[in-house]
Amino acid sequence: MDRRMKQQIAFILEADKLKNVIRRNYLADDSRRENTAEHTWHSTLMALLLFEHAENREELDLLHIIRMITIHDLVEIEAGDTFMFDEEANRNKFDRENQAAKKIFAMLPYDQGKEYYDLWLEFEKEETPNAIFAASVDKMMPVLLNTYSSGASWREAEITSGKVFDTLKVIRKGPKKIADLLEELVTESLKKGNLA
Amino acid sequence: MDRRMKQQIAFILEADKLKNVIRRNYLADDSRRENTAEHTWHSTLMALLLFEHAENREELDLLHIIRMITIHDLVEIEAGDTFMFDEEANRNKFDRENQAAKKIFAMLPYDQGKEYYDLWLEFEKEETPNAIFAASVDKMMPVLLNTYSSGASWREAEITSGKVFDTLKVIRKGPKKIADLLEELVTESLKKGNLA
Repeated sequence: MDRRMKQQIAFILEADKLKNVIRRNYLADDSRRENTAEHTWHSTLMALLLFEHAENREELDLLHIIRMITIHDLVEIEAGDTFMFDEEANRNKFDRENQAAKKIFAMLPYDQGKEYYDLWLEFEKEETPNAIFAASVDKMMPVLLNTYSSGASWREAEITSGKVFDTLKVIRKGPKKIADLLEELVTESLKKGNLA
Repeated sequence: MDRRMKQQIAFILEADKLKNVIRRNYLADDSRRENTAEHTWHSTLMALLLFEHAENREELDLLHIIRMITIHDLVEIEAGDTFMFDEEANRNKFDRENQAAKKIFAMLPYDQGKEYYDLWLEFEKEETPNAIFAASVDKMMPVLLNTYSSGASWREAEITSGKVFDTLKVIRKGPKKIADLLEELVTESLKKGNLA
């Protein structure tokens, strides 16, 4: 194994730890909280399936989107999961995750590590059309699970519909059909009492 | 939500069950067995990182590969995980999974369901260069975890190096650097006693 492959293999093994990072939301069957690795897979699947609804898909690059989704949560190995609605923890989230990103992507060969750090940063900034689509789908995923389960993580934290719209405002910048989906899921959650 | 989006959302929710399908191998830290959803994410990450080593990458389509990896294990929701080295269970694996594939992808809008069924079939047949790359990486993932953990799932079943090479012969059809990686991991596992 040459040095490049060795670095990549060490990185892939380090990434295994994402399977032990536990998120706030539960699975659709309420059986347990979700871990970040399986969440990332689910977001990727959603991005693949709903890509057709992006009116601006001519300007999007689906592979680029998938690469962003696949790697953007690796920082949680160092920084832990930050609950979307925890205002206090979100204040310094970027700085904590930026430090984590620098550390973890430095395990890769320099050029590849830089490429992945840049992908992470693009995702976090939510400015490019690709990042807006990727972030929209990734943030929709727990809304979907909270709507079609008993919504335990929202109920525990007494989350309101206003807070969901406010926290997920990136979704309104993306495809209209995805933004409409958010509206419908929130309406359904209010009806079920999953959202206050 | 129109009928198309409704079908896609129902499919995405059904897919959540993959997080409860437990595979034979353990995480790198030996703490528990892996589930198939998190495994799929890890295979995707590996495909992205090691793609550069494919000598034939001019003829490969990385997005197509990622799409195959992302969906190929969904059949396990119906058919369960089949341990790679269980000869008995592998005899009727294709038929069981083919039935499962027909059932699960039929939840999607017809055109999309057909597209994903075809992707599943392409992956399973391991004939096209894209499928060979996808299958190589996906099958390397548990080898990597078994090599750098205590190799409990191999030890439990008394797996030999010969059996690994025989079962994973698709890897020799793919990129040389990935095939070389398999050789090295097997050598390391023999040294550690993880393989008999």
